[in-house]
Amino acid sequence: MKRLDRIYSSADVKALSADVLPELCQELREEVLETVSRNGGHLASSLGAVELTVALHRVYDSATDRLVFDVGHQCYAHKLLTGRRDRFDTLRQLGGLAGFPRPNESPDDAAISGHASTSVSVALGMARARTLLGEDYGVVAVIGDGALTGGVAYEGLSDCGSSGEDILVLLNDNAMSISENVGGMSLLLAKVRVRPGYLRFKRFYRRTVGRYRILYRMLHRIKEWVKDLALPDNMFEDMGFYYLGPVDGHDVKALERVIDYARSIGGPVLLHVCTKKGKGYAPAEEDPARYHGVGPFDPARGVDAGQKENFSSVFGAALVELAEDDGRIAAVTAAMTDGTGLDDFARRFPKRFFDVGIAEGHAAAMSAGLAQQGMRPVFAVYSSFLQRAYDMLIHDVALSGVHVVFAVDRAGLVGADGETHQGAFDVGYLCSVPGLRLWAPSSYAELRGMLRLALAAPGPAAVRYPRGGEGAYKGDSSGQDTAQLRPGGDLTLVTYGILVNEALCAAETLAGEGIEVDLLKLNRLDQPDLEPVLASVARTGRLLVLEDSARAGGLGTRILAELARRGTPLLAQRLLDLGDGVVPHGEVAQLRAMLGQDAAGVARAARELVRG
Amino acid sequence: MKRLDRIYSSADVKALSADVLPELCQELREEVLETVSRNGGHLASSLGAVELTVALHRVYDSATDRLVFDVGHQCYAHKLLTGRRDRFDTLRQLGGLAGFPRPNESPDDAAISGHASTSVSVALGMARARTLLGEDYGVVAVIGDGALTGGVAYEGLSDCGSSGEDILVLLNDNAMSISENVGGMSLLLAKVRVRPGYLRFKRFYRRTVGRYRILYRMLHRIKEWVKDLALPDNMFEDMGFYYLGPVDGHDVKALERVIDYARSIGGPVLLHVCTKKGKGYAPAEEDPARYHGVGPFDPARGVDAGQKENFSSVFGAALVELAEDDGRIAAVTAAMTDGTGLDDFARRFPKRFFDVGIAEGHAAAMSAGLAQQGMRPVFAVYSSFLQRAYDMLIHDVALSGVHVVFAVDRAGLVGADGETHQGAFDVGYLCSVPGLRLWAPSSYAELRGMLRLALAAPGPAAVRYPRGGEGAYKGDSSGQDTAQLRPGGDLTLVTYGILVNEALCAAETLAGEGIEVDLLKLNRLDQPDLEPVLASVARTGRLLVLEDSARAGGLGTRILAELARRGTPLLAQRLLDLGDGVVPHGEVAQLRAMLGQDAAGVARAARELVRG
Repeated sequence: MKRLDRIYSSADVKALSADVLPELCQELREEVLETVSRNGGHLASSLGAVELTVALHRVYDSATDRLVFDVGHQCYAHKLLTGRRDRFDTLRQLGGLAGFPRPNESPDDAAISGHASTSVSVALGMARARTLLGEDYGVVAVIGDGALTGGVAYEGLSDCGSSGEDILVLLNDNAMSISENVGGMSLLLAKVRVRPGYLRFKRFYRRTVGRYRILYRMLHRIKEWVKDLALPDNMFEDMGFYYLGPVDGHDVKALERVIDYARSIGGPVLLHVCTKKGKGYAPAEEDPARYHGVGPFDPARGVDAGQKENFSSVFGAALVELAEDDGRIAAVTAAMTDGTGLDDFARRFPKRFFDVGIAEGHAAAMSAGLAQQGMRPVFAVYSSFLQRAYDMLIHDVALSGVHVVFAVDRAGLVGADGETHQGAFDVGYLCSVPGLRLWAPSSYAELRGMLRLALAAPGPAAVRYPRGGEGAYKGDSSGQDTAQLRPGGDLTLVTYGILVNEALCAAETLAGEGIEVDLLKLNRLDQPDLEPVLASVARTGRLLVLEDSARAGGLGTRILAELARRGTPLLAQRLLDLGDGVVPHGEVAQLRAMLGQDAAGVARAARELVRG
Repeated sequence: MKRLDRIYSSADVKALSADVLPELCQELREEVLETVSRNGGHLASSLGAVELTVALHRVYDSATDRLVFDVGHQCYAHKLLTGRRDRFDTLRQLGGLAGFPRPNESPDDAAISGHASTSVSVALGMARARTLLGEDYGVVAVIGDGALTGGVAYEGLSDCGSSGEDILVLLNDNAMSISENVGGMSLLLAKVRVRPGYLRFKRFYRRTVGRYRILYRMLHRIKEWVKDLALPDNMFEDMGFYYLGPVDGHDVKALERVIDYARSIGGPVLLHVCTKKGKGYAPAEEDPARYHGVGPFDPARGVDAGQKENFSSVFGAALVELAEDDGRIAAVTAAMTDGTGLDDFARRFPKRFFDVGIAEGHAAAMSAGLAQQGMRPVFAVYSSFLQRAYDMLIHDVALSGVHVVFAVDRAGLVGADGETHQGAFDVGYLCSVPGLRLWAPSSYAELRGMLRLALAAPGPAAVRYPRGGEGAYKGDSSGQDTAQLRPGGDLTLVTYGILVNEALCAAETLAGEGIEVDLLKLNRLDQPDLEPVLASVARTGRLLVLEDSARAGGLGTRILAELARRGTPLLAQRLLDLGDGVVPHGEVAQLRAMLGQDAAGVARAARELVRG
């Protein structure tokens, strides 16, 4: 029998003897590894956060206290401890548990967190609500050092440090990106601080001396003065936090002690915990980047080294080729070197490669500066993360009309990462950026061609392409703004990007049924060439628009508006899009089927339009 | 004859004897005060930045070196020094000089900067481009301490500090928001540092000892170790900057010396300059907030204390009233307490009022946390600044469906602040946020009514209203999603918000000419009730849509799409919107006339539609 068999809540974790906690952690690791190796998921950070998660549940109760994870993919152990173990094998599957915290999945999940760096802000809002409403519960933000590179984390910490709220910010430091800011001296101090005797003395000191405010203040000042002389402050103390740490993030008993002490202090406390990404699974410890987000793999053999060809890798290779001939090309990423396929570029042109951390706003503005002075920056970024830079797209890039190219990866459905990661909004927000040119390739060849077009165009430009690889369509129509893939007189089917594969397949099926589809593919989305579409609808009278974008700001609405403007009569029409843009997790193929965007769904919609 | 009469460039500033610089500064102050008191503008920060601007032109040449101002409204002295004095009286007027730097106005303006906090990012991109292209010029970011509260500034500083680029970040610290982070000890050091003898010694030291790298490194380490013991590091040094300061920002000679030294150091340098907002004009020194952005006033008497009623003040008063009855209502602002009309709320309910600095992303996410735990946060923010929080709107607010109310001020045309501040995009980006309800009041009464609706609605909600006051329309149709303001059979005119006044006036004129306009006003924009519109167009056959929003994501396109969907035949149509959303500075009335959005323009368009 496993320890985990009896754990359904924070209370159950608290009921365990402290001695068996390492055993519990071992079980959590095994279950995380087992499920992630089967379903895919975020392995390295989840393994690293096991002890700190258990320790948090020893001190807090996630049913009432609010634990905000940032980024949320470190929440797997938390899910296993809070009554979801029986469904844990459905992780990231359609209808199953989400890979991120979701309040509507469990009251133990405090907030949605698929994008980085907002945990302190959200947690601070919760703490303030608690205080204002006179309630009594703990609030914790668990933030990774990667998430700390995002500017909004700094905004949140600034406000939090001076808020006076009882709140714990637990910094899960599993790399080196901020360790220099903290300094070696603090490390020395930390060893003193986490000794149980020291914590006991501190509590005693506050209880006794704390009663006599003048004495306390005087002693406090002397202490602070001595500390200031002997130890450099760190950024967190400057911001108003009581800083604790760094402590060993894999010593679960010490963690419990220090978290318990942190909670007792009151006011904003920053606890710095050092963890190892991938802890407990050797291959992930050795190469945590490779085990950050993984597909299914054999735990005994580890993740395959060979990367399969996909849109990201094709983009990366194409950019390397272009950069060989043009010294002005630079590549920018916001902590997604591997994910965006820029690893080879980084090796080949280290001076022209800039990984700025999880800082999309800065990346866009910095690219504007590069472009303004004669470089040709290409910022490769996921569609849903580029939302962070919407203002910089307009203010720093578009208003100056500088030539920055955005390589918008993960556009459209991304699958298992779910609602926070679906690239559903980029068509809308990119098309609202003044003067920005937007291309949507459907094949590797088109991605190469359109990247060239984007680099040759003046002003801001973007190329949007999906997660994963190309389909049956391998053509190259990048020379045209709108391409006819198939002629037909019964129905005008308009689509773009990766969905052409579903459209082609549906058209084939329909042809077998005697329905001839005029299939038009849009390559430019910002100022699309709609003449072929209008001419086609004038002939067929029927329009079906298929797009992997939210309806607001999408092409379907714009095409209909153009038809109205021209007075083209329409017998029947249908928009097959992502609706409001909120699409849950699941395999892309499953999601498409669910949304009626797969070949069968498209054919079904077409039949309805043609046969009435 | 004035000193300024002979100044057309940085070179001319350099040609002056150092002794006459205070005189030059005095002249700059007078001209800034004179023009701003006549045209309105940003007075306090411009007066505060006079000496540092002159000193920068003594060391750098803005024709080739890149000076990036953040926020750009401190650039008035810079404009006066760089060949634009003869046109300075056209400041912020239609066709005249912009109130912010604009590269297409002068090569001396390095970058557009109307929104805060991106200067370090943009400047860093420029510095990197310079280095990569093997060119040789200086790059400076001048950033206010207010702008430093924005997260993207932190992202930029992090990247900049470790970049190794020769770049100067000049921190124009005119308030107290960051001074605590820097610490009193640094102040002591600064006095030593700016003594000319000390600077000379430093240069000598680097030139001589610097040749012997091992000796230099050893001495450097000893020095750093002593400094670490004696002085707390500050955040900037932790980030990798060579920190200089704080220095007196109104001692122009000392400033020149220290900037010259800063330039000679190489690598990223942060120079901390302390200035006084409003320096040299007593009323502005005493109340800098009131003199931040001003309308025309009499310099002898100062700005009027009494605030005129406008949408912002009506919003503020309405929220105070609502908050008296509902203890769950909280107000959030991103450094715009006065501008958004929240000053009274801040005084009345200090515990429920949160000014988070220039941090819109944090404000939105913090509001999500407040809402999640039972409060009713209202985040009052300018339309163009809310662009910064687009991702938080989707990720932290909408995906959780929490009930945050956004009071979107300065929606539509704002006038003299120009292209960076026009609220042209909010309708598009807000309507793309899943589940967000968006209202557009046309009068004070409707603002009060719709604010109530927004507070009563579940989920995210927003109310967008313009800068300035209401017009002739003072009605209240907030009970309806779409209201008919005037019946007519010749043309369907659809509009929303403040433009109803132009529409009503045009309809009146047209009626006199025998053209009867069916005037429909949309109150809800996210899911507008278009039935009355469709029914009307079915009768009139003619549609004119008038909106103070960019076309992309606007209502015009959506209405046309709906007409196509229903197959409603259309004889003629026209969309009168803000096009791509880029609208220059000028008076709102002038801009409206220019865009054909005033009553005369609307009547003209209507005539064309009706008479063909």
